[in-house]
Amino acid sequence: MKKYLLTPGPTPVPERVLLASAKPIIHHRTPEYGQALSEGIEGLKYVMQTKNEVFIFTASGTGAMEGCVVNLLSPQDKVLVVNTGAFGRRWVEIIRSFGIEPEVIEYPWGRVAKPKDVEKKLREIPGIRAVFTQSTETSTGVVNDIEAIGNIVAKTEAVLVVDAVSGLGGQELKTDEWNVDVVASGSQKGLMLPPGLAFVSISQKAWKLVENSKLPKYYWNFKAYKKSLDENRETPYTAAVSLIMGMQESLRMIKEEGLEHILRRHAILASATRAGVEAMGLELFAEAPCNVVTAVKVPEGIDGQRLVKMMREEYGVGIAGGQREYKGKIFRIAHLGYMDRFDVIIGLSALEIALSKLGYKIEVGKGVAAAEKEFLK
Amino acid sequence: MKKYLLTPGPTPVPERVLLASAKPIIHHRTPEYGQALSEGIEGLKYVMQTKNEVFIFTASGTGAMEGCVVNLLSPQDKVLVVNTGAFGRRWVEIIRSFGIEPEVIEYPWGRVAKPKDVEKKLREIPGIRAVFTQSTETSTGVVNDIEAIGNIVAKTEAVLVVDAVSGLGGQELKTDEWNVDVVASGSQKGLMLPPGLAFVSISQKAWKLVENSKLPKYYWNFKAYKKSLDENRETPYTAAVSLIMGMQESLRMIKEEGLEHILRRHAILASATRAGVEAMGLELFAEAPCNVVTAVKVPEGIDGQRLVKMMREEYGVGIAGGQREYKGKIFRIAHLGYMDRFDVIIGLSALEIALSKLGYKIEVGKGVAAAEKEFLK
Repeated sequence: MKKYLLTPGPTPVPERVLLASAKPIIHHRTPEYGQALSEGIEGLKYVMQTKNEVFIFTASGTGAMEGCVVNLLSPQDKVLVVNTGAFGRRWVEIIRSFGIEPEVIEYPWGRVAKPKDVEKKLREIPGIRAVFTQSTETSTGVVNDIEAIGNIVAKTEAVLVVDAVSGLGGQELKTDEWNVDVVASGSQKGLMLPPGLAFVSISQKAWKLVENSKLPKYYWNFKAYKKSLDENRETPYTAAVSLIMGMQESLRMIKEEGLEHILRRHAILASATRAGVEAMGLELFAEAPCNVVTAVKVPEGIDGQRLVKMMREEYGVGIAGGQREYKGKIFRIAHLGYMDRFDVIIGLSALEIALSKLGYKIEVGKGVAAAEKEFLK
Repeated sequence: MKKYLLTPGPTPVPERVLLASAKPIIHHRTPEYGQALSEGIEGLKYVMQTKNEVFIFTASGTGAMEGCVVNLLSPQDKVLVVNTGAFGRRWVEIIRSFGIEPEVIEYPWGRVAKPKDVEKKLREIPGIRAVFTQSTETSTGVVNDIEAIGNIVAKTEAVLVVDAVSGLGGQELKTDEWNVDVVASGSQKGLMLPPGLAFVSISQKAWKLVENSKLPKYYWNFKAYKKSLDENRETPYTAAVSLIMGMQESLRMIKEEGLEHILRRHAILASATRAGVEAMGLELFAEAPCNVVTAVKVPEGIDGQRLVKMMREEYGVGIAGGQREYKGKIFRIAHLGYMDRFDVIIGLSALEIALSKLGYKIEVGKGVAAAEKEFLK
């Protein structure tokens, strides 16, 4: 059976990138590798819209998140987490693991963070060192208003740390213009790469925290990464060379298409997906839906876990279910990275067929038609 | 120019593995991926010669080392590092980064650890919780007597933690028979994979320390990996899927050849390399040379860094120089992973040519001849 990957990470990897990654391995202490690494970092700055320093880690995206926590903070620091879902909760869990009890503004899943709440909390609790949140919250399909939050945090002594693991390269994120001090991201989403690389960009304001941070660290030590990069265009430890070579290629593709075009493409795919599911009579889960993944409520009487399984096993179409307490209650279709209009059509078509089979009353073709109309606009 | 990679990691990746890694990406929460992960873990147990639990991390080998430290230890623990080179020093650095000052038995680079010294130290300092050392010390080409050290440590309450990043799959390591409680390893050496995966095996004796460990951790938390594996055949965070798919293939190759044959092949390649360099009048650096990399003293009057650079840039043959204070003073030729007899011949031939060019008095062909004689035995 032919297979289609429509999950919010890993996302499909273009043939050009797969082949670049499959080239014979090179050594990580050579000029050739230094060139690929430098090109990768320059490309990431382009996608992140930043002039800040960028580091590349061999890790899952969660590794970049942990790196931010242990490099920015010291015991007894006051920090704030703006938590809108599973990945907001991950910030809380990581910070707690390192002995710091964060202040948390927690929203019910599906809701968007309110910048006013952040403003209020920062006023109420003086001396907050860092604010942690998500650009796109992959678990709920919400996009937070990072520009507004950035403006608020910039007026304080705190730094703003944004998890853009799923958002980067699909959802607008003007790192410098929006005053985002630290961005954490990963390779397997908008960057069209396999999982295994994680990225961090860091402002000068945030670097001051790094210089004074007292939490224990070794593998994630930003200072070691900076030294290695400045002195030798290297990483301190043997990096995932094949993924770095693939990244060189994927970033070339991104530059060829152009970031503006890429972001517009994601916006169009997202609105077509939303139109499609709504035409099927389904309800969106996210209060402020993002452009990289659409979360949809499972309709009454349908088994959501069975739906996702059926789409994968009977039709070869991989979408994601809900996480944690939303298992079986929502499903999530990605339009992220190396995807285009007919990936959306595939997803909607498979969804119509599977829902029908499960007994959901639906006039098949209506979802697909609604998406096509969006494309015709 | 055609290129040849004879460095002690990354090592060449077989075409079969490159192609398996280049297949379309799959999702990491699917039965297909669970199968690849399980096969990977079973294969690692075969290579490690263990029935212990094995975890796979998306990281460089150093990540596995950090994982061992933060999962086994608590503040105020007494630990011992048996330090024979750059990677022994890495144990010391990681342990110190987490606030523990280890006892250290330090040997000059090139020397092998003396099991009697370990025995004495364990007797002198009661209550040592863990002993950290290297199987093969990549920086010096030494192989330590892990069997003897294992027998000593097994009689105490301490656990033995062995860095086998460069040794695994090339140098004999009978994890269970030799009482090695914890093995840390990586993908880019004997396992014939690109860098990006790190492995840890852990005994029941060591698991008791994990259960009581108080050092902070999140990404490396062994308990989370165990839970995810036991419940869903998954990793807690999005793993490097393409490398896991490659690993499935490389471990099939390892089983096809058979571990015994692989270890014998490495022993033959190592003795041929040693015979070759000695026939050139060069001196081995390691007191107890290992089977995965041969470290050689740079002869008087020759610029070691220029030698390594010339071999790479003029002949396309990548070998490694010395690390830290041995930069320029030694060079290292690997015979590790996907290498066979004629890789040794290439290395020795390029070395003869380059040394001649640099003015070292040598009868070219003698090194190659000596290696051929070893192969004829």
